[in-house]
Amino acid sequence: MKFSQTFIPTLREVPGDAVIASHRLMFRAGMIRKLANGLFAYLPLGLRSFRKVETIIREEMDAIGSLEIKPTVVVPGELWKESGRWTAMGDALLRVKNRLGADFVISPTAEEAFTSLVRDELNSYRQLPLSLYQINTKYRDEIRPRYGVMRGREFVMKDAYSFHTGDESLDEHYQAQGRAYRKIFKRCGLTVIPVKADSGAMGGSGSEEFMVESEIGDNTLLLCKACDYAANVEKAECKLDYSPRFTVELARGAVSSIPPLEKIDTPEVKTIAELCDFLETGPKNFIKTLIYKAVNVELDISAAPGCASLAKHKPSAAAPEVYDEAFFAVAIRGDLDVNETKLAAVLKASELMLAADSDVERITGAPVGFAGPVGLAAVPIILDNTVTGMNDAVTGALEKDKHYRHAAYGRDFTAWLTADVRTVKAGDRCPVCGGELYEKKGNELGHIFKLGYKYTRALNVNYLDENGKSHIPTMGCYGIGLDRTLASIIEEHHDDAGIIWPVSAAPYHVIIVPIKYQGAVLESCDAIAAELEKAGIEVLLDDRDERAGVKFNDADLMGIPWRIVAGDKNLAAGKVEIKRRGEAEAKLTGITAAAAEIAAAVKAELAASSR
Amino acid sequence: MKFSQTFIPTLREVPGDAVIASHRLMFRAGMIRKLANGLFAYLPLGLRSFRKVETIIREEMDAIGSLEIKPTVVVPGELWKESGRWTAMGDALLRVKNRLGADFVISPTAEEAFTSLVRDELNSYRQLPLSLYQINTKYRDEIRPRYGVMRGREFVMKDAYSFHTGDESLDEHYQAQGRAYRKIFKRCGLTVIPVKADSGAMGGSGSEEFMVESEIGDNTLLLCKACDYAANVEKAECKLDYSPRFTVELARGAVSSIPPLEKIDTPEVKTIAELCDFLETGPKNFIKTLIYKAVNVELDISAAPGCASLAKHKPSAAAPEVYDEAFFAVAIRGDLDVNETKLAAVLKASELMLAADSDVERITGAPVGFAGPVGLAAVPIILDNTVTGMNDAVTGALEKDKHYRHAAYGRDFTAWLTADVRTVKAGDRCPVCGGELYEKKGNELGHIFKLGYKYTRALNVNYLDENGKSHIPTMGCYGIGLDRTLASIIEEHHDDAGIIWPVSAAPYHVIIVPIKYQGAVLESCDAIAAELEKAGIEVLLDDRDERAGVKFNDADLMGIPWRIVAGDKNLAAGKVEIKRRGEAEAKLTGITAAAAEIAAAVKAELAASSR
Repeated sequence: MKFSQTFIPTLREVPGDAVIASHRLMFRAGMIRKLANGLFAYLPLGLRSFRKVETIIREEMDAIGSLEIKPTVVVPGELWKESGRWTAMGDALLRVKNRLGADFVISPTAEEAFTSLVRDELNSYRQLPLSLYQINTKYRDEIRPRYGVMRGREFVMKDAYSFHTGDESLDEHYQAQGRAYRKIFKRCGLTVIPVKADSGAMGGSGSEEFMVESEIGDNTLLLCKACDYAANVEKAECKLDYSPRFTVELARGAVSSIPPLEKIDTPEVKTIAELCDFLETGPKNFIKTLIYKAVNVELDISAAPGCASLAKHKPSAAAPEVYDEAFFAVAIRGDLDVNETKLAAVLKASELMLAADSDVERITGAPVGFAGPVGLAAVPIILDNTVTGMNDAVTGALEKDKHYRHAAYGRDFTAWLTADVRTVKAGDRCPVCGGELYEKKGNELGHIFKLGYKYTRALNVNYLDENGKSHIPTMGCYGIGLDRTLASIIEEHHDDAGIIWPVSAAPYHVIIVPIKYQGAVLESCDAIAAELEKAGIEVLLDDRDERAGVKFNDADLMGIPWRIVAGDKNLAAGKVEIKRRGEAEAKLTGITAAAAEIAAAVKAELAASSR
Repeated sequence: MKFSQTFIPTLREVPGDAVIASHRLMFRAGMIRKLANGLFAYLPLGLRSFRKVETIIREEMDAIGSLEIKPTVVVPGELWKESGRWTAMGDALLRVKNRLGADFVISPTAEEAFTSLVRDELNSYRQLPLSLYQINTKYRDEIRPRYGVMRGREFVMKDAYSFHTGDESLDEHYQAQGRAYRKIFKRCGLTVIPVKADSGAMGGSGSEEFMVESEIGDNTLLLCKACDYAANVEKAECKLDYSPRFTVELARGAVSSIPPLEKIDTPEVKTIAELCDFLETGPKNFIKTLIYKAVNVELDISAAPGCASLAKHKPSAAAPEVYDEAFFAVAIRGDLDVNETKLAAVLKASELMLAADSDVERITGAPVGFAGPVGLAAVPIILDNTVTGMNDAVTGALEKDKHYRHAAYGRDFTAWLTADVRTVKAGDRCPVCGGELYEKKGNELGHIFKLGYKYTRALNVNYLDENGKSHIPTMGCYGIGLDRTLASIIEEHHDDAGIIWPVSAAPYHVIIVPIKYQGAVLESCDAIAAELEKAGIEVLLDDRDERAGVKFNDADLMGIPWRIVAGDKNLAAGKVEIKRRGEAEAKLTGITAAAAEIAAAVKAELAASSR
């Protein structure tokens, strides 16, 4: 392809909102343009690389026997109502009513569509396992889209869904998907951090995220310095750093040496730090208590304090009942933070927020700042596991300017539920080996997940076993964001001058730069291009009437792996200059050998990346 | 690919709403399933054929130098407001507000998106011509989606847009697109009727539609029995069958022999037929007059009767002013019908409808049924050209139970505008050669169109010429519906048993049917499949444990071009049976020769279709 016959509007300037390398370089190299906030058009150069990534993903899905289908992008709202996600999904779901008043969704993900398709076709266990995928447009109505295609509103995702008769079959395909993901990222030249949702110590994993390190990552990862433990902070656990929980009976004996509960005056004391100073103690001896409001709570709280008469609804016919909203007191050791994702998972709630001041006052009978588990009866108390190790603690006394000291778990207060809801931090100990954990920021490129029966139950999917007995299949889902994967390749492979594509994702394998595209130079360049193309190599020939410096800069910016420079002087000696993008030195090669040499190098790199 | 490892849910039953062959067969062959009314999912078999069509289109677009890009499916409403189509497009445009209240459109077509992209990048005449295309999801909110993917709500379209410095360059690319379209349809095995918007007699064409004949086609085509004239009824013209229009002066002389205008009583006469009986004349002597309401009228009617004070607005900053609505009287010879598409084009109106009875009464001063051009002053009168040849006609007298006779154009009434607004019918004469026209129903698969300056002007696109002077580029657009093209292939190539794919669009080239997939049969089938696949031939091996009859029926239903049947008896003689789908007879071939023979036939057919 000749440069003059394509459309690659390279730029020297950087758009003001482009703060990360991939956004900056994709824009400058003429790969993308912005149509609106979070909506990007791929121009020819960008689309070529995009299709490379798409093809790699398709090949690896086909290789593990997943079958490609193409549902629609606009899907009936009815399916989302059946699954319950119509209400659970919140504002990120782009909903639309058509001219006849019917509800539709612009797909952000397609569990419902795939499950409903399978529901209508599934009869026998002999049809299982079944794995289907699509590579299709998705939409999420991000409030703050940014970082170019890394976090856009419209994007393309490969999403696969598999259906199985049981856990063993599900696990087998889940593992195959995991291997395919590792291969996809390797072929793309990406270093990914696979992050398991549960630690290996806790048994088999039901979810794995594939992260790339990124300073602007929206995930915080915790990694172990000593072993390969890696977890998203949303789910990270750590080694116990508290006495294991003891029962009320044990506590009664154990606390005999602890002074009795004492209410003390704490005027003018606003923060935990001030309180620690005032009482000459540390935050580890303090019980911090927060009041949360949870929405759509699936956990059965019918017998919990203050919950007997809460309103409930069924999000779909087959779904369990959920509580519209409920309040909870969550107590945790004073040096720690509550992890709201873990807490929401414990409560099976779709949303979670700190209660309003007025609700806190109503529930605790005191101004904000004096909540505590002792004597709190209006709402269920959830204790982080750490609190079950505290038997001489300071905590709010449900009264203005008053705290308790010597509060002991089991003696002075107890829990409606204890759970792990702490946020693990750098410096905490690895749950697997006890090594020190450290933090990284990461972006999620892919996610594989054992869904279980959530959608097949909600959408009423059945199959008959060997004996004609009806069962519900279990399900897995497996996603990769294409735009994000492409941008991440650039994040990992660039320098100050531009992109440095791995051959597998490069828009062209070779760029030929004639110093001046005329006479003998023109003829040689055309001949080399023809020879390379005959060998299946993708060539961009920069036939523009521009200064050599401009062409070199654009070649570096576009990041095409191999560059051939042809000028009168070298040609007279029967030579052209060849250079690998990213390497400092060019070398002279005979005109006749250049094409063969580069073709061999391109093929060798492609073969190596897919091994 | 083994049948048991894919997902092809064939069916014997026909869904009740499937009235055309392609819908019926795509459903029965397990190519598609319905997600909702007008929304279809392609299953693996359907997607394979879909991708074949997609690839053919992509190759032919690339071959004429059009460049593929990928804008978004969801596009900013602002662009549609700039072009004026936000209001002009009506309810078929699926509009959506996001969580921040911004307007978006689910693209039904992408003139605005492409034009805005080019606007931002275009500086110099040296960048032109520029032709860009996408193959992407589109949405039209059809009121009555039907006929399967032939008229769905969501579909995939290839849409190209080209930008040029002038008419000559536009025409060159327009012709190249036309040739590419002919090649695409030929490669798909489709017989298309290219329909020009203007007749050849009227000079160069600015629009060509590619139609396939279809009993459920939503277009009526008029074709000439004697020459290759073909036109959509929306634009069809015919040879004059009336005296050419004469001026008022001529009329004054010519009508001296015509009796003067006479008002007559016509009580109890309701229809033109009754009136003809009553007056002992034919409908060709009657002037039929209809009152229309037109919306968004761009034609300048400021000086027309009754229009001086009509409300106007500008649909976009760069667009001309349009009249919100206006009424018109349209008179035509009594044996003819008004063609509302032609009329709307004359008025440059976005919508057109017959006026309500109350409006007719207000405008004509009489009940419905007595409108006529004589003495009508409240609205502009538009005369179909046929009326300019009438000088002794019957027409309504703007009074209950009264008509005029002996009405003469130029003497008793005149026009504000005369135009060709008649509906051409079978039996009319060809405008090119005078031959007899006949009608066919057709479906539009593709459309190429010289847009001119409509969008580039509205969106303020400019480039600088050699002398640094600013100009607006001219534009063309070129669309093909992929789903419709695929369905049309099936419409043209099927029999009672199923689809008969041309090799170019077949999901697989060959199906191998073992009578029983075991022992020597299994080994032979695997060997033949391997050999075919090595030769680049796509093979489906029916390894199911089903009766041979079931497998034969499914093979016919799926329409795979070549079938190889292997059974113990023939194998013992070193033979397999091969059969071309659509041919009645199978033939025996040596096992070793079968793969080579079929591979050669497949390649020959592919080569022939793309010549």
